Amino acid sequence: MSRGRFITLEGGEGAGKTTLARALGEALRARGAEVVLTREPGGTPNAEALRALLLEGDAGRWSPIAETLLLYAAREDHVRRLIEPALARGAWVVCDRFSDSTRAYQGAAGGLAMERIEAIEAAALGGMAPDLTLIADLGAQDGLARAASRGEAVTRFEAHPSEFHERLRQAFLDIAKTEPERCAVLDARLEPDALARAALSVIEDRLGLP
Amino acid sequence: MSRGRFITLEGGEGAGKTTLARALGEALRARGAEVVLTREPGGTPNAEALRALLLEGDAGRWSPIAETLLLYAAREDHVRRLIEPALARGAWVVCDRFSDSTRAYQGAAGGLAMERIEAIEAAALGGMAPDLTLIADLGAQDGLARAASRGEAVTRFEAHPSEFHERLRQAFLDIAKTEPERCAVLDARLEPDALARAALSVIEDRLGLP
Repeated sequence: MSRGRFITLEGGEGAGKTTLARALGEALRARGAEVVLTREPGGTPNAEALRALLLEGDAGRWSPIAETLLLYAAREDHVRRLIEPALARGAWVVCDRFSDSTRAYQGAAGGLAMERIEAIEAAALGGMAPDLTLIADLGAQDGLARAASRGEAVTRFEAHPSEFHERLRQAFLDIAKTEPERCAVLDARLEPDALARAALSVIEDRLGLP
Repeated sequence: MSRGRFITLEGGEGAGKTTLARALGEALRARGAEVVLTREPGGTPNAEALRALLLEGDAGRWSPIAETLLLYAAREDHVRRLIEPALARGAWVVCDRFSDSTRAYQGAAGGLAMERIEAIEAAALGGMAPDLTLIADLGAQDGLARAASRGEAVTRFEAHPSEFHERLRQAFLDIAKTEPERCAVLDARLEPDALARAALSVIEDRLGLP
């Protein structure tokens, strides 16, 4: 059994990552692959307990460095218990947010030095990284409007002004520019079906389809 | 107002650290100092929430690296919200366990490479360290017997065989040998009054009394 593939979806709020993850899961399953859909922070009981600590309470409850430490504790649990075993048995893992979200939210937008995040990531994950990262790119105003139109509860990370969202968007685009072999940027203004087709086309090019 | 002093108490289970902390608090207060007694993991509401996650559940609930990330998230919160403000206003802070416990438990006894702990510590605390660390040294059998004689509930970290406790003891002694200017080893077989006098004598030598 060959090793599976690890695909992460990144981007700001309201970019359609959750819908895209479901569509990719269906398309890959239709081709016979085992697919594991998961998300961060969370994905395992321990990581979900940390998600609750991170998302509840005031915006200033944790410093950016404490948030980063908690996110990587959750991520290590998620990788060790769910993601690595799935990849080892040949599954395709599609994960809604991963390390790039920490770089974008706590780092570029939150003001934490990238070297501190990278030191923590190296200690926590020892170089484990996605095979492919799809960045759903959307202007901050479009993304917030879409999230609001869905009537979604605004989580703590969403309760920021639009300047924060523009910094976030730029952070994801910068990551894609720095690691073009791992990352691909998708235009999240596309309708859901067209976005999924664009994503599958990138997957076919970069990883091959199952 | 001159900066206060930060003293940590370290050592295995049952070495009398809690009793020693109270005695030191009384002695320093009697000399007119403001004293803040605290402990880890914990000391602030956020850190206590993480303490609960760390101490509850099965022994294998978290990996040593996830434990370390959670401990430093708690420590950063504790330092930033409680310890640093107290030191800034001139208080003496006496803390039951700090970074050396992570080195000893998750590192030397738990098998996590010391470089990973040190990378996380540098990212989390940026070099913040105690002015003085008192290591209450006790053989593993003496310590466990003393904890049992107090009828204490055995926490998750105590539910280990005595070989673990010997590794732990040696880890604290190694830390003291590596950093002799910061650390002093106390013989925890002493009666509580004599142990407190020995500790105060070290504090007078190293830091001066208030």
